[in-house]
Amino acid sequence: MSTREDAIVKWFASRSDSSRQDFPIGIGDDMAQVYLGADKSVLVTTDILSDGVHFDLKKTGLEQVGYKAIAVSLSDCAAMASVPVGAVVSVVMPRGYGKKELKELHNGIVKSAKKFGCQLIGGDITCWRGDGPFVINVAMLSRPAGGKPIERSGAKVGDYICVTGELGGSDAGRHLSFEPRVKEAIQISRMAHINSMIDISDGLSSDLNRICSSSGVGAIIEAKRIPISQAAQQKKKPLASALNDGEDFELLFTLPGKECEGLLSRWKGEIGLTRIGQITDRCKMQIKLRDGRLNELKIEGYDHLS
Amino acid sequence: MSTREDAIVKWFASRSDSSRQDFPIGIGDDMAQVYLGADKSVLVTTDILSDGVHFDLKKTGLEQVGYKAIAVSLSDCAAMASVPVGAVVSVVMPRGYGKKELKELHNGIVKSAKKFGCQLIGGDITCWRGDGPFVINVAMLSRPAGGKPIERSGAKVGDYICVTGELGGSDAGRHLSFEPRVKEAIQISRMAHINSMIDISDGLSSDLNRICSSSGVGAIIEAKRIPISQAAQQKKKPLASALNDGEDFELLFTLPGKECEGLLSRWKGEIGLTRIGQITDRCKMQIKLRDGRLNELKIEGYDHLS
Repeated sequence: MSTREDAIVKWFASRSDSSRQDFPIGIGDDMAQVYLGADKSVLVTTDILSDGVHFDLKKTGLEQVGYKAIAVSLSDCAAMASVPVGAVVSVVMPRGYGKKELKELHNGIVKSAKKFGCQLIGGDITCWRGDGPFVINVAMLSRPAGGKPIERSGAKVGDYICVTGELGGSDAGRHLSFEPRVKEAIQISRMAHINSMIDISDGLSSDLNRICSSSGVGAIIEAKRIPISQAAQQKKKPLASALNDGEDFELLFTLPGKECEGLLSRWKGEIGLTRIGQITDRCKMQIKLRDGRLNELKIEGYDHLS
Repeated sequence: MSTREDAIVKWFASRSDSSRQDFPIGIGDDMAQVYLGADKSVLVTTDILSDGVHFDLKKTGLEQVGYKAIAVSLSDCAAMASVPVGAVVSVVMPRGYGKKELKELHNGIVKSAKKFGCQLIGGDITCWRGDGPFVINVAMLSRPAGGKPIERSGAKVGDYICVTGELGGSDAGRHLSFEPRVKEAIQISRMAHINSMIDISDGLSSDLNRICSSSGVGAIIEAKRIPISQAAQQKKKPLASALNDGEDFELLFTLPGKECEGLLSRWKGEIGLTRIGQITDRCKMQIKLRDGRLNELKIEGYDHLS
């Protein structure tokens, strides 16, 4: 029960011999955590985006690309309920790009980062020698918001499964301009005891599978509860779109039922919170359809290696 | 007196409003430093390498590419006299690449990292949708070795200028298999008071200019003192090669004369240390040729944006 990408990440993780003391969180979560002594730690994530895969420079300006590249990493910070601190950005530019293009990119980077108190603190700029596409990598540092960062692997049998916002149809435009759920994640983690969390980057089915697989549990979600976005409702298969479209960048988290009820009743955030299902002890994912039938929930989100 | 790359980095730095308290070292040095409270800080660097620019996959295996990508960032850790801690690695792969290729890459990454106690702690893997070249980004974290990290900008008038090892001709092969000077940097910084340091990634002339320019000083180096590598001596212009070839990944540092004399007399490292010149109060770089003439030292190292 895993995508090719998840399988290779597991292989990498299995080869790691980093100590849990120095690296409380290692390969396989949204961010790794490095313990520095004196009760201080830092988290780090890296995301690489390229023209033709994550954006299309024929239709999209460099400012939007800069915004998105930072927002993707901010979403990882959110997934751990951590506070973004600083980012280093690397780019490989097509020949002919220069100061003008870098300034456009910088505008987007700063627009995205500043919104969440994150600083651009360094980078690396190179050029293709011949023809070559634009590539940007963001590595971002964050710090725990107070308690421990929230891992994927902590889901418990019986937990309720919740999401922020609405799902699906991000490819219609939202994937370039989304708001990472940094503030919501910190707020949620302060209002309730969250057992596991991830951001939905590759589609609900894929990212719920990551929680289940790393927690050793299963899940049942209910079709009628899934918050389907307006954009997904325009599509031929709105539910499939909400389940499998990538780049929602909403939060997916699990917590004990009572904690969930308390959270939902006290939640006053602008972004909705919705309970969509429950964690089970069977190592599989299922979806209860509107007609009551229980189907297998297939992992049909975006696989970076397929 | 700056390359296109340095000019744009200065522009980025001028736009930054990060506080010196939270970020003691920001844009424009080998690494940025993030202060985390309780006397703890972390340094971070990012380097992006791509096929056809930094290596040629027609001639070079992925294991060597992984080794080099990590070694380049380790060299940045060395340049600050800091201790490597962990790295996150992103790759964009040509279509058709899979587990086999990633394992080869992983071998090289681990070979390079383990040598210096650095752990692979996370990453991101994506694929081109159509044709596209292999790209790898390494973001590395380090911690101060004890005292303050050594910046580029601390060179003082009268400082002696030193380098480790031998320069030039790295393109003949050494650029893929070099040993980053992590241990030497820490040792040097413990044996003497170093005012400024950088690693020679783009050629002595370019990197000495970075020290001069950020310190507001000039420099005179002596041709007869430059340690020219065997590989550079095979070239048509060995001195020019030692001055301007990129990817030596040796250390270039400045320190008061007396400190330098003490260091050189007590130095027992395997890698040679050579005094090559002196920092001056004139904001230009000069080279004393073997015949005694004093010429301008032109910045002819590798410019990533030209």
